[in-house]
Amino acid sequence: MTTHNLVQQIRKKKSFLCVGLDVDLSKIPQSLMTEDDPIFAFNKAIIDATHSFAVAYKPNTAFYEAYGIKGWQSLQKTIEYLNLKYPEQFIIADAKRGDIGNTSTMYAKAFFEDLQCDAITVAPYMGKDSVEPFLAFSSKHTILLALTSNEGAFDFQTQEIDKVPLYEHVIKASRSWKNSRKLMYVIGATKASYLGEIRKIVPDSFFLVPGVGAQGGDLREVCKYGMNKEIGLLVNSSRGIIYASNQDDFAEAAAVAAKDLQQQMATIMGEI
Amino acid sequence: MTTHNLVQQIRKKKSFLCVGLDVDLSKIPQSLMTEDDPIFAFNKAIIDATHSFAVAYKPNTAFYEAYGIKGWQSLQKTIEYLNLKYPEQFIIADAKRGDIGNTSTMYAKAFFEDLQCDAITVAPYMGKDSVEPFLAFSSKHTILLALTSNEGAFDFQTQEIDKVPLYEHVIKASRSWKNSRKLMYVIGATKASYLGEIRKIVPDSFFLVPGVGAQGGDLREVCKYGMNKEIGLLVNSSRGIIYASNQDDFAEAAAVAAKDLQQQMATIMGEI
Repeated sequence: MTTHNLVQQIRKKKSFLCVGLDVDLSKIPQSLMTEDDPIFAFNKAIIDATHSFAVAYKPNTAFYEAYGIKGWQSLQKTIEYLNLKYPEQFIIADAKRGDIGNTSTMYAKAFFEDLQCDAITVAPYMGKDSVEPFLAFSSKHTILLALTSNEGAFDFQTQEIDKVPLYEHVIKASRSWKNSRKLMYVIGATKASYLGEIRKIVPDSFFLVPGVGAQGGDLREVCKYGMNKEIGLLVNSSRGIIYASNQDDFAEAAAVAAKDLQQQMATIMGEI
Repeated sequence: MTTHNLVQQIRKKKSFLCVGLDVDLSKIPQSLMTEDDPIFAFNKAIIDATHSFAVAYKPNTAFYEAYGIKGWQSLQKTIEYLNLKYPEQFIIADAKRGDIGNTSTMYAKAFFEDLQCDAITVAPYMGKDSVEPFLAFSSKHTILLALTSNEGAFDFQTQEIDKVPLYEHVIKASRSWKNSRKLMYVIGATKASYLGEIRKIVPDSFFLVPGVGAQGGDLREVCKYGMNKEIGLLVNSSRGIIYASNQDDFAEAAAVAAKDLQQQMATIMGEI
C-alpha cells in the first residue's frame, strides 16, 4: 500500500487507528481454547469487529513466536486473512528487527515477501547498512524505532550527543539513507511533548505512535504535537482494544473501544 | 548451560569457536534440494562434521524466518538435534530482539522455553526494561549488542555522549541491570582494537565476536585484546565455514575450515 492510499483511507474512515494484535493465550476467553487455532480465531473476531474503525493492524511477532511453529502459523493466517478480506488495511509487522546487511535482507524477505506485510518496525542501533536492506523494498515501508514508549527510552535514546539526543541523531541520519522517503518512525505516545520538535525534523513522515491506553499516553496531546497536514499519524492501541473484555463478548467490547478511539480521532480531524 | 560448563568445554576442546548457521538456500549444494528439509539436512551435516572443533552454534533467525513456517521448522529441528545429540554445545539464537517489557518476556519464552536455546542476542536501543525480561531467565544467557561488526556501527554506537561512546554507555549501564551476571556482549572482530578498553569495563564477561573471516576480522588481534583468564571469548565464523565449498564435499570442507580455526585457537590458548 502506498502512503497516498493510506492517507485516503484515513480521510475516508476519519480514523488513524492501528489495532495491535498482541495475543496472549492466557488473556483470551476460555471458550476460544477449543478452536483449532485459538489465536487466529481471536484475531479474526477482533478484525471483523474493528475493521470499520481502524486503518491498520499491527501484530507483534513476539506474541506469535512464543508459541513456536503454531504461533507462526497463526501469524501467517492472520495476515492472509487481512490481505484477502480487508486489503485496504495497512499491515505492520511489529518485529523490531535489524542486523548486518545480508541478514537484514533475509528479514525483509520474511516480512515483505513471505508474509506480505506492508511495513515492518526496525531497530536503529546497527546503523545505516542494517536498515537500507529493508528500504530497498521500495513498495513497502520501514518504521524505524526513534523514541519508544517505555521507561527504558530514557536510558540511551534521550542521551545527548553534541547536545542533540540520540533519537534525533537517528532521525536526522536516517533522512540521508537510500529510499528514506519510505521511512516512518516509532514515537511513543508517552513522550507526546517531544513530538513537536520531531515533527520539525521530519515534517512529512508518518509516525507510528504506541502507548495510548494501557501505557498512559494521551491522544489529544499526541495529535496536538504530532499531526501534519496529511495527518501523518498511526496511533496504536493494543491491550485497550483486544482485551476490553475477556469474556465471550470480547469482540463486541473491542468494537466499542475501537469506535470510541475512532470517534475521538474524527473529532480531532474535524477541528484542523 | 552454565558459564562454568562453557569454560570447561572450551578448555577441553581447546576451542572457542562458534559456528554460525546462516543458511541461504541459494548457496547450498543443489543435491540437497531434493531432501524433505534441505536447510535441516545441510545443518545436520555441518554440525556432524564440525562439532569436535566448536563449542557453540549460532543460527541467525533471519535465515529461517525468510522461509516462513518451513524455515521455523528447520530452525526448531536444528536446535532439537543439537540438544539431543550434542548437549555439550552452547546454542545461541542470533535474533537481535528487544521490545517493551511484556513483549520481551514473550520473546524470551520463544527462544528459551519453546526453542530451548541457551542464549539469545538482544538489541539495547530500548533500554533496561527491554532487556531485563530476558535476564529474568536466570539459567539462560542474554547477549547484548554493544559494538557490532558492520560499517553502520560507526553511525551511532561510536558516537560520544559526555565523551564516552554509546556502546560503552550501553555496557556500563547494563552492569547495573538485574541479573547482569548473565550478560554477554557482542563485540565485532572488525573492531578488535576497541576490545582492550571494553575488557577493562567488563573483565569477567564473555564476548561473542562475529566478523572473523568473510567480514575481515583477525583472530589473533581479537584474542590479544579480548581474552581474559577464562578465555571469555566465543569467536563466530559463519560463511567461512558453512560455505567453504558449495559442492557435495561441503561438510568435509566445513570441517577443514573449522579445524583450521580451532587449531589457531589451540595455539593461542597454549601461549597464554
